[in-house]
Amino acid sequence: MHRTLCCAVATSTSHRALVRLFRHLGMQDAVTAAKRAAAYRAVDENIKTNQVVGIGSGSTIVYAVERIAERVKSEHLLVTCVPTSFQAVSLITSSNLILSDLNRHPELDVAIDGADEVDMQLNCIKGGGGCHTQEKLVAANANTFIVIADDRKDSKTLGEKWTKGIPIEVIPFAYVSVMKRIASLGLQPILRMATQKAGPVVTDNGNFVVDATFNEVYDWCKLQHKLICIPGVVETGLFIGMASKAYFGNADGSVRVRNKEDTA
Amino acid sequence: MHRTLCCAVATSTSHRALVRLFRHLGMQDAVTAAKRAAAYRAVDENIKTNQVVGIGSGSTIVYAVERIAERVKSEHLLVTCVPTSFQAVSLITSSNLILSDLNRHPELDVAIDGADEVDMQLNCIKGGGGCHTQEKLVAANANTFIVIADDRKDSKTLGEKWTKGIPIEVIPFAYVSVMKRIASLGLQPILRMATQKAGPVVTDNGNFVVDATFNEVYDWCKLQHKLICIPGVVETGLFIGMASKAYFGNADGSVRVRNKEDTA
Amino acid sequence: MHRTLCCAVATSTSHRALVRLFRHLGMQDAVTAAKRAAAYRAVDENIKTNQVVGIGSGSTIVYAVERIAERVKSEHLLVTCVPTSFQAVSLITSSNLILSDLNRHPELDVAIDGADEVDMQLNCIKGGGGCHTQEKLVAANANTFIVIADDRKDSKTLGEKWTKGIPIEVIPFAYVSVMKRIASLGLQPILRMATQKAGPVVTDNGNFVVDATFNEVYDWCKLQHKLICIPGVVETGLFIGMASKAYFGNADGSVRVRNKEDTA
Amino acid sequence: MHRTLCCAVATSTSHRALVRLFRHLGMQDAVTAAKRAAAYRAVDENIKTNQVVGIGSGSTIVYAVERIAERVKSEHLLVTCVPTSFQAVSLITSSNLILSDLNRHPELDVAIDGADEVDMQLNCIKGGGGCHTQEKLVAANANTFIVIADDRKDSKTLGEKWTKGIPIEVIPFAYVSVMKRIASLGLQPILRMATQKAGPVVTDNGNFVVDATFNEVYDWCKLQHKLICIPGVVETGLFIGMASKAYFGNADGSVRVRNKEDTA
Repeated sequence: MHRTLCCAVATSTSHRALVRLFRHLGMQDAVTAAKRAAAYRAVDENIKTNQVVGIGSGSTIVYAVERIAERVKSEHLLVTCVPTSFQAVSLITSSNLILSDLNRHPELDVAIDGADEVDMQLNCIKGGGGCHTQEKLVAANANTFIVIADDRKDSKTLGEKWTKGIPIEVIPFAYVSVMKRIASLGLQPILRMATQKAGPVVTDNGNFVVDATFNEVYDWCKLQHKLICIPGVVETGLFIGMASKAYFGNADGSVRVRNKEDTA
Repeated sequence: MHRTLCCAVATSTSHRALVRLFRHLGMQDAVTAAKRAAAYRAVDENIKTNQVVGIGSGSTIVYAVERIAERVKSEHLLVTCVPTSFQAVSLITSSNLILSDLNRHPELDVAIDGADEVDMQLNCIKGGGGCHTQEKLVAANANTFIVIADDRKDSKTLGEKWTKGIPIEVIPFAYVSVMKRIASLGLQPILRMATQKAGPVVTDNGNFVVDATFNEVYDWCKLQHKLICIPGVVETGLFIGMASKAYFGNADGSVRVRNKEDTA
Repeated sequence: MHRTLCCAVATSTSHRALVRLFRHLGMQDAVTAAKRAAAYRAVDENIKTNQVVGIGSGSTIVYAVERIAERVKSEHLLVTCVPTSFQAVSLITSSNLILSDLNRHPELDVAIDGADEVDMQLNCIKGGGGCHTQEKLVAANANTFIVIADDRKDSKTLGEKWTKGIPIEVIPFAYVSVMKRIASLGLQPILRMATQKAGPVVTDNGNFVVDATFNEVYDWCKLQHKLICIPGVVETGLFIGMASKAYFGNADGSVRVRNKEDTA
Repeated sequence: MHRTLCCAVATSTSHRALVRLFRHLGMQDAVTAAKRAAAYRAVDENIKTNQVVGIGSGSTIVYAVERIAERVKSEHLLVTCVPTSFQAVSLITSSNLILSDLNRHPELDVAIDGADEVDMQLNCIKGGGGCHTQEKLVAANANTFIVIADDRKDSKTLGEKWTKGIPIEVIPFAYVSVMKRIASLGLQPILRMATQKAGPVVTDNGNFVVDATFNEVYDWCKLQHKLICIPGVVETGLFIGMASKAYFGNADGSVRVRNKEDTA
C-alpha cells in the first residue's frame, strides 16, 4: 500500500494527484481505525484468563495481539497463544505473550483471525497470505472461531468483493493435474507466482498456492468438499460454517457484530 | 529382510537355525519368483507403444520396470514413464527409459504399482514406503490403474493380512490434533518413527506419516472420506475403487488375475 | 515493471507523466534488445551439439533458451538442458528442449545464466530471484560458466550498481543467529519478506533468504569464505572467480564481451 | 537394539544363545548406567539458574534432561531450553521444562549433547541421528559446548571406533555432484537410505544425508573446511574444536572428564 503511495508521488506532482494522495492517506487511517475497533471489541468480548488462544495472520490480527497484550498486563490474564504463521510468532513473542504451538495445545478455547471476505452466513475466504492451511488447522481445533475485519470484507456472498479467488494449497508434485480438476469444476485456477523470488510462491509448508476464481454462487460446503477431495489438494481457503461470530469495524470506530445463530 | 538373515546367522549356528535359514532363503526365492511373474504378466497385458506409464514404488515394481525395459528394447516401444518416488526415478533412468513427471504428463494411460494389501473388491492399502501421496496422484490421473503383488498381499478384506494400519500423510504442524481425530474415528494412530534418523519419518513432501491400525471392517469409501476431511491430512494410503485389475503372482510362477468387473 | 507502468497511467494523465511513460516504454524495448543481443551471441559462441547445458534463471535467460531452441531446430543440435529453477524447467519444456537434472547430469559442458551485477573480474552477485543456490550448483559443475546481462549490470566493483545486497540462503531454524554473524562481519542483513504471501520468502529448497547490504569493497573471495562458514548458511549469491566470460548487451544490439583472462 | 534381542530370542532357544542374550541385557544395563552417570555429572557441573541451555539429541541426552528436570524442581532453577530436534522438543515439554527455540534465544550459555565419537582433542563426529545441522547450530551459538557419552565413544582419533563415516547433510538437488566431490577428497560417500520409508532419509530440514567413510587420519579442521566449501553441502557432522569438556560414563557409574585445555 505504502509502495503505491510512493509511486503516486513519484509519477505525478499535479494537483489532482495530490488530492488523490491525501484521500488515500485518509482512507488508510480510516481502515486502520476500523481494523483496530473490530479487533479490540473481539478481544474484549471473547478472551478470558486461563485460555488457549489461536492467533491468526494478516493486518487486522496485529491489533488483536496489541489488545491481548494490554489486557494481559492490566488484568493479569493468563493466556497461552498458538500461532498460525511466522508473523503470528513474531507478534506473540514481541508482545511478551506466552508462545505455544498446535501440537502442544491441540485443543484451543478461542481462535481469532482476519479474513479476505465474510458472507452473511459467516462463511469466509482466507489465504491471501498463503497461511490458510495453518489458520484452518488452528480454527478447526478451537471451540470458538472469531473473525475480525474492516467492513470492506463484509459481503452478501463470497466473491462479491474478493475477486482474487479461493486460495488452494497444493502439492508441487501435482499442481498441473490439480489445476485441471479445479477447472473441470468450473473455476479458473491460476498458480500464484512470487514477486520477491523467481517462480511460484512456496508456502511455509513447502507447497504451492493455486488461486481459483469463480463467476457463480456455489453451495460452498459442497464446493469445499469437492476441492478437498481432489488428490494433491492440501487445504483450501474456504472456511465454511466455522466462524461463530464476526466483528466488522467501521472507519468511525463503530463495530457491527454478526453471530452464527443470526444467520440460520 | 536380508538383515534378519544376517542376524540369524550371527546369533546361532545351531542346526535348527540353519534349517530355518535355508527355508528363509528358499522363501525369498519363491517371493521373488511370485513378484516377477505378476509384474511381467501385468506389463505384457497392459503396456503398449506411445503410452504414458506411471511407475509405482516398492519391491515388486522393480520387475515391472525390468520387463518394460526389455520390451522397449525388443519391440521398440515408445513409452514415457512418470515416477512416484526417488526409487522409481532411479529405476527408470538406470533402465534407460524416458523419464517425465506428473506435471509434464498430467494424464497417463496406465499406472502400475504394488500394494501392501488388496481386498476382493481391489481396494488397496498402500504406503508402507511412505510414497502413497505421490502414488495416489499418479494412479488417480491414469486411465487404468494396475496392481501387482505376490499372493501374500491378496486378502478377503483389508486388515486381514496387513496389520500395520493405514498410512496417512499429515502436516507436521498438526500431527497431534490429526491423531486425536483419527482416534475418535475408532482407529489407533501411531506416528511413524524413523530408524536411520532420530525422530519421525519425514516424507519426500516434508510431512509426517501416521499409521492407523483398526480392528473392524469399515465401509472403506466412507472411511477414506472421513480421513481426507480431517484438517491436516494430506493423503491416505487407502486406494478405494481405483484399481482396474490386480495380478497376484505365486511362487510357482503362475499368476492369478482379478478384474474390477469381477468384483461387482 | 509492467505494474509500475499501469500505476503511472492510473495516477496521472498529465502531459509530463505521459512523456515519462513513453520514455519508460522505450527503455523497456531497449533493455529487451540488450538482453536478447547478449543472450544470442553467448549461445552462438558457446553452445555446440552433444553438450549438456545448464540453464539459469531470470529475465535474460529467456532469450538464451529462445536461441538454443532456434539452433536445435535449424542446426539439428543435440543439447541436454539442466535447469536451475521452476522457471528454467518451464522454459526448457515449453521450447521442446531435452530436460534433464543435475543429479542425472552432474557434469555439464556449459552453464549460461544472468546476474544482478558483474564486476571487472567477472565476479557476480546473483540471487535476486532466490535461486542462487541451484544456480551456483549448476555453474560450479560446468566446465564453462557464461554470464549474460544487459549493460546496466556491468560494474567496476560489486555494490556499485546493485544496492540490494548479497542474497544469502539460510536455514529457517537459525536465521536470527546467522543475521547476527553477518552483521558482525560489517554487512547489514535483512530477512527478505514475501509480498504474495505473509512472512518471509521461502525458497524452492524450503529455506529463507537474507539480503546483506554493504558499504565497502571487500576481498570477495574472503567474504564468500567467511559467509559460507557461518553455521546455517546454505549458499551465498557471490559467484567469485566462476565465470569464464560475460556478454553485456547494449540497447543498440551491440555486445561487449569480457573474458576471464582479460581480467588477470 | 531391542529388535535384535527379539530376533535372537526368536531364532534360537539354544543354551548358548540364551547366555549371549543375558550378556546382552546386562550390557544394556551397563550402557544405560554409563550414559546416566555422564549426563548427571555434566548437568550438575555446568547448569546454573537463569541459563539458556541447548538440548541435544540421542540416547544419552535423555538422562541430561531427566537431571535438569530434577534440579529445576528441587533447586527451583530457571532454565530455558533450546531444542535441536523433534526428540529434544518432546523431552523438554514432557519434562515440563521451558521450551524456546534458537531464533528466540540465538545466544546460549551452555549446550549439552551426545556424540557418535570423541577424540583426544574433543573433536566429535555427530549425525548418526541426522540432526547434526541443528545440533551444530545450537552448539556454535553456545558459550560452552559440553559433550556427554558412554565410554564406548571415547577414541584416540576419529574413525577408530565409529566406522559409519561422517554424516553430511546435502541438498537433494545436487546429491550426486556432492558425492563425487567428497569421493575426490578420498572419502567413500554413501547416500543414507531410510528403512521406514522408501528412498533416502529425509532430514527435518528436507535434505538428504551422505555418510562419508574414511581410512586415514585427517587434519579434521581442514577436512571440515573442504567439505563445507563443496557447493550443495549444508553442514557436516564434524564438530572440530567446539567442545569445551567431555564427560565419558562407565558401566560402574564412574565418569571420566576431559577438558579442552588438557588437550592443548
